[in-house]
Amino acid sequence: MPNHGDATLPAHWGPPYLLYLGNPADDLAIKTARGVAWWRPEWCVGQYRHPDCKLTLGLPDIGMAEARARGANTMMIGTANAGGVMAPEIVADAIAALDAGLNVVAGLHQKLRANADIVAAAQRNGRVLFDARDPAPGIPVGTGRPRAGRRLLTVGTDCSVGKMYTTLALERAMRQRGCAADFRATGQTGIFVAGAGVPVDAVVADFISGAVEWISPARSDDGWDLIEGQGSLFHPSYAGVSLGLLHGAQPDALVLCHEPTRRHMRGLPGYPLPELRHCLEANLAAARLTNPAVRAVGVALNTSGMPAPEALAACQRISDLLQLPCQDPVSMGVEAIVDNLLACFAN
Amino acid sequence: MPNHGDATLPAHWGPPYLLYLGNPADDLAIKTARGVAWWRPEWCVGQYRHPDCKLTLGLPDIGMAEARARGANTMMIGTANAGGVMAPEIVADAIAALDAGLNVVAGLHQKLRANADIVAAAQRNGRVLFDARDPAPGIPVGTGRPRAGRRLLTVGTDCSVGKMYTTLALERAMRQRGCAADFRATGQTGIFVAGAGVPVDAVVADFISGAVEWISPARSDDGWDLIEGQGSLFHPSYAGVSLGLLHGAQPDALVLCHEPTRRHMRGLPGYPLPELRHCLEANLAAARLTNPAVRAVGVALNTSGMPAPEALAACQRISDLLQLPCQDPVSMGVEAIVDNLLACFAN
Repeated sequence: MPNHGDATLPAHWGPPYLLYLGNPADDLAIKTARGVAWWRPEWCVGQYRHPDCKLTLGLPDIGMAEARARGANTMMIGTANAGGVMAPEIVADAIAALDAGLNVVAGLHQKLRANADIVAAAQRNGRVLFDARDPAPGIPVGTGRPRAGRRLLTVGTDCSVGKMYTTLALERAMRQRGCAADFRATGQTGIFVAGAGVPVDAVVADFISGAVEWISPARSDDGWDLIEGQGSLFHPSYAGVSLGLLHGAQPDALVLCHEPTRRHMRGLPGYPLPELRHCLEANLAAARLTNPAVRAVGVALNTSGMPAPEALAACQRISDLLQLPCQDPVSMGVEAIVDNLLACFAN
Repeated sequence: MPNHGDATLPAHWGPPYLLYLGNPADDLAIKTARGVAWWRPEWCVGQYRHPDCKLTLGLPDIGMAEARARGANTMMIGTANAGGVMAPEIVADAIAALDAGLNVVAGLHQKLRANADIVAAAQRNGRVLFDARDPAPGIPVGTGRPRAGRRLLTVGTDCSVGKMYTTLALERAMRQRGCAADFRATGQTGIFVAGAGVPVDAVVADFISGAVEWISPARSDDGWDLIEGQGSLFHPSYAGVSLGLLHGAQPDALVLCHEPTRRHMRGLPGYPLPELRHCLEANLAAARLTNPAVRAVGVALNTSGMPAPEALAACQRISDLLQLPCQDPVSMGVEAIVDNLLACFAN
């Protein structure tokens, strides 16, 4: 867990952040930074851009020393480029940030900690580096032992259908109602948004369920852990991750996430998306292994590719089909899903 | 793939083996060596034991230089001890083997390649080290693309119920009938028996199905790849590995493995074993994602904990229940299962 400036503790990454954009190729390249700026604006002191950068997150453009002066603890390299390679200017900027007294975090395939110059700069400044794709050491094997507390997991018909956004929208809506609710991150962007978490697709295969047990331990405050799902039981490349995540989460409640305009499983033209009812039932059946009382509480539809009237009609159709509230978290909110969740677990 | 002594190729691990026993604590500690001696006696030149060693594989006791003189290519450290730690005498013996001109392989948690003295000895002798728990670099993400050839996968109600033995028994029986059939290893002992393979529980989670696609590529000779299963869809700690393995294998045929005296899932007293029919149907349903034509062809029962008449009765009962041949591969062979496999895929 990060600490936020207590000088008696060792340096640790975490917010407040300076969001590093550099000179990104396109909007997709700053997806992670955009997610953090969207969900945690209060953690973002500013953005660092090269002179040629055409994109913006709408944050103040500031340098590293100024960011430090304004209270930033960490520079987050939220860019992704082809192959996850660390360009020479990113290396130079990471070193400059460390020399300015910031910790540095990144989610590139190529690791900060694999670059000797960056490591040396961190050491001479007493700053820490964090690679979001490197799982913490010491993750245990899953035990399947029932644990206290309530947990909700987002599951999907496919990869990249909005599981992280849905989970964070639920956190925001529940907190606005005064419920204790905590997002538990399982992917790179989610980890930066939460300031903690495990990149569950990067752990060694034997430890998938253990990693999820570890990030959502027993709780006794009547609150909810809201666990970010990954992949899909129906994706031939990644279903193992999704199943281990489902078992480790021991979810009480599932929210099914779907993108209705998608024509095939992400990256695999030969594979159609699963039928919604079949997908939900398969997830419930698998989840019962570690929590026999699991139930579905809602459907989150990513309708960004549809006109508004069609989106509403699609939600109504799916709601009728599955007898569950169905909403687009971005354009419609998640109040109906939260209503149903709280009604299902009222006592 | 290992080469076996062609001086124009670089040194590579592989048989013939000198099996290293050292001074093991108990029979369980030499399980891997015993598996290799049982399934590949023709690859085993001898065993290396310390004077106090009470256990034997029934192989000639020879030293390292003599093993080299008799044609051994590799010393296999087939022992496991508490915590997978490499004891000082194992380090010394590994160095002596390298100095005698042998390659050295091991399946300990602690890696040969993490020990500077062992690495130096390998370098000065031009020998290679291989840690069976280290997956090869460059394993791709699974694609789910249909590939040519026929594949059989062993699946289980639990871990350690005889999946490797069953798969190897099928290979032996099919080869005796003149069928092309190749065991594909997914665990440490299997990798030493096959001389190749991937420790699928040690790959990064995103690459489970890709690893299995990689070890069982398309084949066009009408032969069978017989893929060693791992874990169980019903084991809360490891089901993710089992599901990724199932999807990557794209199996045409499944053999269900079971140990009927087991009272709960391995290591988890709170979890009963799944009912056989439910377990088989769940495996078939999940396997259909990447091979809709998958079918079950038999059940392998590990009856080592039962008297012979009971074992026969148990096989009969399960055979009637599932309408599949059911045999103990060790005490009864696998001929009825092979008969059914070949009948099911006759054309």
